[in-house]
Amino acid sequence: MSTNTYPEALRTTIKALSNENSYKSVCHHHYPDQPMPSMQVMEEIVDLVREIIFPGYFGGSPARPASIEYYIGVNVELLYEKLRQQIFAGLCFGCDDADRFEIAAGKKQATEMAIQFISQLPDIRYLMSTDVEAAYLGDPAAKSRAEVIFCYPAIRAVTNYRIAHALLELGVPLIPRAISEMAHSETGIDIHPRAKIGHSFTIDHGTGVVIGATSIIGNHVKIYQGVTLGAKSFPLDEKGNPIKGIPRHPIVEDNVVIYSQATILGRITIGANSVIGGNVWITSNVPPNSKVIQEKWRSTGFVGGDGI
Amino acid sequence: MSTNTYPEALRTTIKALSNENSYKSVCHHHYPDQPMPSMQVMEEIVDLVREIIFPGYFGGSPARPASIEYYIGVNVELLYEKLRQQIFAGLCFGCDDADRFEIAAGKKQATEMAIQFISQLPDIRYLMSTDVEAAYLGDPAAKSRAEVIFCYPAIRAVTNYRIAHALLELGVPLIPRAISEMAHSETGIDIHPRAKIGHSFTIDHGTGVVIGATSIIGNHVKIYQGVTLGAKSFPLDEKGNPIKGIPRHPIVEDNVVIYSQATILGRITIGANSVIGGNVWITSNVPPNSKVIQEKWRSTGFVGGDGI
Amino acid sequence: MSTNTYPEALRTTIKALSNENSYKSVCHHHYPDQPMPSMQVMEEIVDLVREIIFPGYFGGSPARPASIEYYIGVNVELLYEKLRQQIFAGLCFGCDDADRFEIAAGKKQATEMAIQFISQLPDIRYLMSTDVEAAYLGDPAAKSRAEVIFCYPAIRAVTNYRIAHALLELGVPLIPRAISEMAHSETGIDIHPRAKIGHSFTIDHGTGVVIGATSIIGNHVKIYQGVTLGAKSFPLDEKGNPIKGIPRHPIVEDNVVIYSQATILGRITIGANSVIGGNVWITSNVPPNSKVIQEKWRSTGFVGGDGI
Amino acid sequence: MSTNTYPEALRTTIKALSNENSYKSVCHHHYPDQPMPSMQVMEEIVDLVREIIFPGYFGGSPARPASIEYYIGVNVELLYEKLRQQIFAGLCFGCDDADRFEIAAGKKQATEMAIQFISQLPDIRYLMSTDVEAAYLGDPAAKSRAEVIFCYPAIRAVTNYRIAHALLELGVPLIPRAISEMAHSETGIDIHPRAKIGHSFTIDHGTGVVIGATSIIGNHVKIYQGVTLGAKSFPLDEKGNPIKGIPRHPIVEDNVVIYSQATILGRITIGANSVIGGNVWITSNVPPNSKVIQEKWRSTGFVGGDGI
Amino acid sequence: MSTNTYPEALRTTIKALSNENSYKSVCHHHYPDQPMPSMQVMEEIVDLVREIIFPGYFGGSPARPASIEYYIGVNVELLYEKLRQQIFAGLCFGCDDADRFEIAAGKKQATEMAIQFISQLPDIRYLMSTDVEAAYLGDPAAKSRAEVIFCYPAIRAVTNYRIAHALLELGVPLIPRAISEMAHSETGIDIHPRAKIGHSFTIDHGTGVVIGATSIIGNHVKIYQGVTLGAKSFPLDEKGNPIKGIPRHPIVEDNVVIYSQATILGRITIGANSVIGGNVWITSNVPPNSKVIQEKWRSTGFVGGDGI
Amino acid sequence: MSTNTYPEALRTTIKALSNENSYKSVCHHHYPDQPMPSMQVMEEIVDLVREIIFPGYFGGSPARPASIEYYIGVNVELLYEKLRQQIFAGLCFGCDDADRFEIAAGKKQATEMAIQFISQLPDIRYLMSTDVEAAYLGDPAAKSRAEVIFCYPAIRAVTNYRIAHALLELGVPLIPRAISEMAHSETGIDIHPRAKIGHSFTIDHGTGVVIGATSIIGNHVKIYQGVTLGAKSFPLDEKGNPIKGIPRHPIVEDNVVIYSQATILGRITIGANSVIGGNVWITSNVPPNSKVIQEKWRSTGFVGGDGI
Repeated sequence: MSTNTYPEALRTTIKALSNENSYKSVCHHHYPDQPMPSMQVMEEIVDLVREIIFPGYFGGSPARPASIEYYIGVNVELLYEKLRQQIFAGLCFGCDDADRFEIAAGKKQATEMAIQFISQLPDIRYLMSTDVEAAYLGDPAAKSRAEVIFCYPAIRAVTNYRIAHALLELGVPLIPRAISEMAHSETGIDIHPRAKIGHSFTIDHGTGVVIGATSIIGNHVKIYQGVTLGAKSFPLDEKGNPIKGIPRHPIVEDNVVIYSQATILGRITIGANSVIGGNVWITSNVPPNSKVIQEKWRSTGFVGGDGI
Repeated sequence: MSTNTYPEALRTTIKALSNENSYKSVCHHHYPDQPMPSMQVMEEIVDLVREIIFPGYFGGSPARPASIEYYIGVNVELLYEKLRQQIFAGLCFGCDDADRFEIAAGKKQATEMAIQFISQLPDIRYLMSTDVEAAYLGDPAAKSRAEVIFCYPAIRAVTNYRIAHALLELGVPLIPRAISEMAHSETGIDIHPRAKIGHSFTIDHGTGVVIGATSIIGNHVKIYQGVTLGAKSFPLDEKGNPIKGIPRHPIVEDNVVIYSQATILGRITIGANSVIGGNVWITSNVPPNSKVIQEKWRSTGFVGGDGI
Repeated sequence: MSTNTYPEALRTTIKALSNENSYKSVCHHHYPDQPMPSMQVMEEIVDLVREIIFPGYFGGSPARPASIEYYIGVNVELLYEKLRQQIFAGLCFGCDDADRFEIAAGKKQATEMAIQFISQLPDIRYLMSTDVEAAYLGDPAAKSRAEVIFCYPAIRAVTNYRIAHALLELGVPLIPRAISEMAHSETGIDIHPRAKIGHSFTIDHGTGVVIGATSIIGNHVKIYQGVTLGAKSFPLDEKGNPIKGIPRHPIVEDNVVIYSQATILGRITIGANSVIGGNVWITSNVPPNSKVIQEKWRSTGFVGGDGI
Repeated sequence: MSTNTYPEALRTTIKALSNENSYKSVCHHHYPDQPMPSMQVMEEIVDLVREIIFPGYFGGSPARPASIEYYIGVNVELLYEKLRQQIFAGLCFGCDDADRFEIAAGKKQATEMAIQFISQLPDIRYLMSTDVEAAYLGDPAAKSRAEVIFCYPAIRAVTNYRIAHALLELGVPLIPRAISEMAHSETGIDIHPRAKIGHSFTIDHGTGVVIGATSIIGNHVKIYQGVTLGAKSFPLDEKGNPIKGIPRHPIVEDNVVIYSQATILGRITIGANSVIGGNVWITSNVPPNSKVIQEKWRSTGFVGGDGI
Repeated sequence: MSTNTYPEALRTTIKALSNENSYKSVCHHHYPDQPMPSMQVMEEIVDLVREIIFPGYFGGSPARPASIEYYIGVNVELLYEKLRQQIFAGLCFGCDDADRFEIAAGKKQATEMAIQFISQLPDIRYLMSTDVEAAYLGDPAAKSRAEVIFCYPAIRAVTNYRIAHALLELGVPLIPRAISEMAHSETGIDIHPRAKIGHSFTIDHGTGVVIGATSIIGNHVKIYQGVTLGAKSFPLDEKGNPIKGIPRHPIVEDNVVIYSQATILGRITIGANSVIGGNVWITSNVPPNSKVIQEKWRSTGFVGGDGI
Repeated sequence: MSTNTYPEALRTTIKALSNENSYKSVCHHHYPDQPMPSMQVMEEIVDLVREIIFPGYFGGSPARPASIEYYIGVNVELLYEKLRQQIFAGLCFGCDDADRFEIAAGKKQATEMAIQFISQLPDIRYLMSTDVEAAYLGDPAAKSRAEVIFCYPAIRAVTNYRIAHALLELGVPLIPRAISEMAHSETGIDIHPRAKIGHSFTIDHGTGVVIGATSIIGNHVKIYQGVTLGAKSFPLDEKGNPIKGIPRHPIVEDNVVIYSQATILGRITIGANSVIGGNVWITSNVPPNSKVIQEKWRSTGFVGGDGI
């Protein structure tokens, strides 16, 4: 682009885009001099947790009694540094009133939250071990638990969920949602970090699964691809904004299996030991020990052509 | 691999794969000496647009009145250079008859298309601001508009769609489709760039959404994960090839909500203010103000075991 | 973090996580001194195969008769080296009894498997050319075969499937599954490498498609997004583990079309030339030349509000 | 490395290296929670300055009146952010007594120093333009000023020197020395940032040039490769440490030329307009307008063999 | 940096640096829309040549008769593409009058120069093989020719020189100088690409060696670190610019050895079979078969202290 | 480059370069299926050693008693793995007779050498601490020991030397030389790994220093830039090859200082406590307590002009 060919339209557009009226509703004024949350660092955090929880699988740490403590020691300290930095960035991101947000207090809070999260890692590892076991036992195509840990997308998605859930329970803003969206992008599984999920949880294949924010899932539950645990329409406040925090997603009790593409909406209960067939639309309670399937399809006879 | 162990089978296979009869139907002869389209540069283009539209969120540009014009100035010029290069690469890619394609004319055309696209950025930003507002108001789990912009996959997918749509309307080949496939891979949301979509458009969760090429979507429409706006079978021409360009996807009027996994096929109309329940199969018109849901499921009673 | 502020909780957690009882069920003891399988190298392998099969599209190799053999020669040799390394890593990964696994024999076996795989590349290219043709003819929105090869996710997913299937047929452990999961993550299409799929196979859009391990798919089959070819519940052995290897997924005969979100479960047969409508739940045989659609939805009349 | 082959010697060595007596004299306790200086960020800083000073040569910023201010605006702001961060890191690095160092005051000081440095950039650009002119006029092999700017190592070394000198004059610790060492490594030219150097300064070839900390160099001076402006032995204080800050390097007046490998030591003066021949050893004053050369060599007659 | 703390000094400096009077003498207006020369691509070019010349040492190409032609075929084609691109960039860089420079003609010329250069590669390989042999025979510390090729800096510097010399002889601007500066930075050896150097040339250690543009060096010459083959002062034209192209550097005949730090200046001849001792300053002819050494040093007796 | 413009000259050159007669003297046949030595991995090895020796300076490991053992544990194990791999690659590289080289024995030997090297790290750290102390005390411009460790090139070069020397003493081929060449390229200091150097060794500035393979240097020696400890001509064997291993470089006793550009050649001794002035040429013994300087230069009177 030569000097004399700089298109005038560029300059005009630059002016228009730099006008505060144009950008004010879609821009972000971050807290002065403090770092933005970083998707890349959050990925490093998740990778570190995965490396710590599953020794010998990821990131090059060998699982060897003679030296495992060195690796876990280094990884935990790295995790601690990155995590409190990101938590602090999340606190800044969410602060509505920069004048009242205190840097020092925010750093202290971020540090405490990071420590509390790390203290839960042994429990998270235990929960994940039950999920691995359930995935292995529930899939005749699984060759070994090692294969499940190494390459099953559900394990990846549930790991991110269990990390995000623990952070959200500690009150960390933004970061939990971002971590669950990372898994959503990689696996097509969208679990809101506020959902509560018991042990021995399995998702098979998983693409398209949605588990809403106020869902409660028991133990030994298995869900197939495309299943939605969603909300019906929700009440608005006097300003027309949705009222936050109302329980609006299903409760799924222990030992339930839900087949692919089932849509289950609203604060209803799927009773224990039930089996929900694929492609059904459920907006009311299902009692325990039920088996629910779609109305049978119609055969219309062949009409030729190669489609509908 | 030592000298004397080079497997003879490699050589044989190399010969077979280098035979023109083997590769002629799956190879690409690009226009001589001109660059191929690059997925990586297209990603940089989308990142630049996102950084320009949403100041302060992505790519490190702060949103600060004192300097915002510098950042937008630099980003717009970078965008201009990369975009006209990729548009030109797309024009080369698509040229059937290299002998008749003129380099200089192609470069001029690419430059003009790039300028026209950039001139639309203020409008695209405005449209995106309505989409952000709709997503925020439509999701009780959303904490803030900032969170929506920063990590909601639907905003990512709709941004790519609005970019791709603008480019396709200008007549740019290949690049629009590639940009929409990038979002498809990241979010599971597949919006054809030729579809027409009004303002204040929301997709919740989004994995598995398909919006076909001739779809027309009004304002204030909300779509959930797994929804298909697709085509029924299509007519073939005398050579057996599908006839291109026939309207074959649904029209969705203003204020419609479509729940998860609903499949809506053919050039039918979903009337304004309607609500379409999940998992339904619709191949005929739905009048305005309708509420449509699946036939109720059957409960078959408990049969034991742990599945269907 | 200063010396005197190292949180005691970190040390406690490190100790807990380094305790063998904590990690023994989720750690991996790899074969001593041998490399772990690497997702990154497997991606390079898939990229090399794609570059070899589709000359001129990917990775910078031009398609030019004067030099194509040089590029294919180099790429095949690179593929050979990386592939036998990863196959060997897969053999180590899967060896249950490190004492009985023989390094030298494993390397020889990996080398032979790599050669046998490479020898099938001309056939894989031919199959892929039929898939490209089917995708082009089956999509009115497709501008050219080149566009299909360059950016259609189904071509990417089916390429990975055909690679993984060939490796699995040769007896390679782990690597096939990892390669199919790579495509699953990128495209939302989950095809088990053990499935058998004929020529001229198309998937449109594809997000959410699941094709189970013992599925058998004929020629000229077309599948839309969200379709499941899955299993019903499966028998357990006396220890409560699922019995492996029993045929449990559908057989889909030639010329079948299956619309979006259909769920087809169990060892049933969808007869040739049938059309399966979207969102249906099928657990029994469908005779040839059938057309199957969901029970019609109910219109409940408008109830106001903006959702269900 | 298998579990049972972890060499005991590793563990012993790890213990020895982790013993505080072993590492206490060679370790660095950085100020708690503050960043270390980063060679990588310092390289980015130098690259930014080079891009700002020489528009159109480095880093992709074009030199185009219509948009140059955008690029300089962005680059100056980036420079400001990186520089005050590194200056602050340098202040932390150098603080002897962590208890008395105040973070907030340090950040304020770093910000002020960064602003003062940036304010000098127009002057630094002017000085560099005289250096470029001198290099071009002084080298018959130079094709153009552009070639001099683009690839002459002396310009690179003198740019780093002028940056480092300005920072050191502002009182910045560590960073100036690190920046001059970067040039030293790239070019073999070692100019201490405390040296004072006039305008129109040239170094030809340059490898091995050393210019000590208290050197004073006039205008229009030219120096060849291997020239040392060094110190003789220096006095020690009562503890045996060298006394810092005493003038101990040469003064080189205007218009002096010094040929390759000349060694000039101590606080002596090389008078204006003098020419110093190569390989001489000078430890006393040289009056203005002198020409100094080495004693003539001896020819010893040929003694056969192929060397000394 | 918050909105209200953007330092006013930044804005003032940005304005000053964006003023055309400030930057006009140090900016580069590149030929519109054409690429700048790239140091990174030039490094790739040199790496490719090194990989082609020394099969099996660099870049991963194995040296195996069964496949070597594939690797050389690919590398030569890559080299051809990168080289003609950089040569063309060099032609643009050097064009004084953009109005008269013709793009198409420039591209054609660049292509021809690239082909001519590549055609010389077998000869360059032969010359390099003599240099390797000389280095091996001339260094008692060399273990093998392989070690010489793999890690001796002189081989690296002379390879760059022989590449740069061939390009400069073809008339390529800028690129040869940039390639020789790359070696200068890596090895401290500065050989002007215009110098003429015979076969079996060795440089031992090499740091600080300077070989000027009009030097002529015979066969079987060996040079040690710090040796300068330079120019005395040179005549100026009527405008005060140095007159270009006058022979002004030494001629070194066959079988000469020059020891470290010797400075040899002017268009003089060092006769065949001579040995030049280290640290001498030579500005007049040395007859063949001479041995020249520095005047003996003086011993001044010990004066205490720890230096001069 | 289009199909029909592939230059015939490329093909001809490719053929010529692929001819075994052309490449046989400059190619490397590596041991089949074993890895080549890698400059990149060797750099990682040196970085790991530097991080281990100087805690808190490099690579992000903090120096904190509570966790330092974790970091050293991990870094030592990484070092062990990389080192035995590179040592093994070096053994393969050097094996003249591939038929007689035994892989298993080579791996065992490499492992033992790696362990022995690592066991010496505490001693190497101690030696380096004396070098740091000497550099700090010997340079009035040094602000602190921390600055010396962080950015003095001599510390970098001597670290590489001490690593390389220890490896060479263990009998490792190639790798030591490559490691010393890395430092040579970065700092211009070329110390042969076979040289013997005592404690408290300093090099000031350093560019151009050469220390030959059989040099012996005592304690508390200080050397300035451009100093050569080299060899005179060396005897050839009956085949004309230099005889390896003969002592041919100087012995420098304790407490000697050698100023810049001094050239000292042959198996001579510089007696303890001597001071050698710059630019001298010494080929015979210098007794202890000597001070040696160059013959005084001649002043030739001013002759005008601007150079020699």
